[in-house]
Amino acid sequence: MKSKTYVLSILADNHSGVLLRICGLFARRGYNLLSISAAETQDPHISRLTIVTEADDQTLEQIIKQVQKLHEIHEVLNLSGDISVKREHVLVRAGCSEETRDGLIQVANLYRAKVLNVAETELMLELTGSPKKIDSFLRLVKPYGIIKMARSGLIALEREL
Amino acid sequence: MKSKTYVLSILADNHSGVLLRICGLFARRGYNLLSISAAETQDPHISRLTIVTEADDQTLEQIIKQVQKLHEIHEVLNLSGDISVKREHVLVRAGCSEETRDGLIQVANLYRAKVLNVAETELMLELTGSPKKIDSFLRLVKPYGIIKMARSGLIALEREL
Repeated sequence: MKSKTYVLSILADNHSGVLLRICGLFARRGYNLLSISAAETQDPHISRLTIVTEADDQTLEQIIKQVQKLHEIHEVLNLSGDISVKREHVLVRAGCSEETRDGLIQVANLYRAKVLNVAETELMLELTGSPKKIDSFLRLVKPYGIIKMARSGLIALEREL
Repeated sequence: MKSKTYVLSILADNHSGVLLRICGLFARRGYNLLSISAAETQDPHISRLTIVTEADDQTLEQIIKQVQKLHEIHEVLNLSGDISVKREHVLVRAGCSEETRDGLIQVANLYRAKVLNVAETELMLELTGSPKKIDSFLRLVKPYGIIKMARSGLIALEREL
């Protein structure tokens, strides 16, 4: 079976143990989560988790069914494909010298990335966009030297027409 | 013991089970994760997890020590307080009618939120900023009716001076 990348959006009670049970369902099958983002919604008792994973169709269906069975779960949506808007957010500390700083700032401007912090030998940059845009931005930043980065993982919502 | 909000940044091997073990350490103590964001870094074998949790100082120290003991862990940083830049990202579908759309767009402009999708009875808005800014934006959007939202959870990097 060919593995594809899937995006799942899960609405769940916001209490200790729910995340553990969801992670357990994936780990038991040896499925890694490529990314996970979880935070409270407009109702602080309810969290939305966005999970990106690689699986084949059949196993994904099984996982979805098992997640749905957990009593703390209110909704499980498969947001893979064009039905959803998918966005990501990254913070990156990139190295620069007096000579290379201008080049790095040009890359930031090209992508409309924000400069959040300036230090003698580095800049902290922030970008929000599609995963593709984030990837291509990071490719251009890489030659300057990525000191540290934190990527939020994908968040997604279905697109209403 | 008084509980405070803490931000932990963890660098870990990117494979199935690591997330499960980390979540387990918190769940066993009944500690909920207020938010979690995990995604790959510049090295695709290594992920950075940013966790926000409420705990007392002593228990947090214990959890940090236990996380450090896991052999898949490369770094655990306590990024609470002013030493780090903390940012969040949110997608929100807010309801609107012909009469209320202008007001909602004004709120978006005020916060420099992006309009990602326009439908007859709603807008999809995106904002990146400090957790405080996100909270205050959501308070202003709430009266329009939040249909769905996905919040990325906090990401943070230490500030180099």
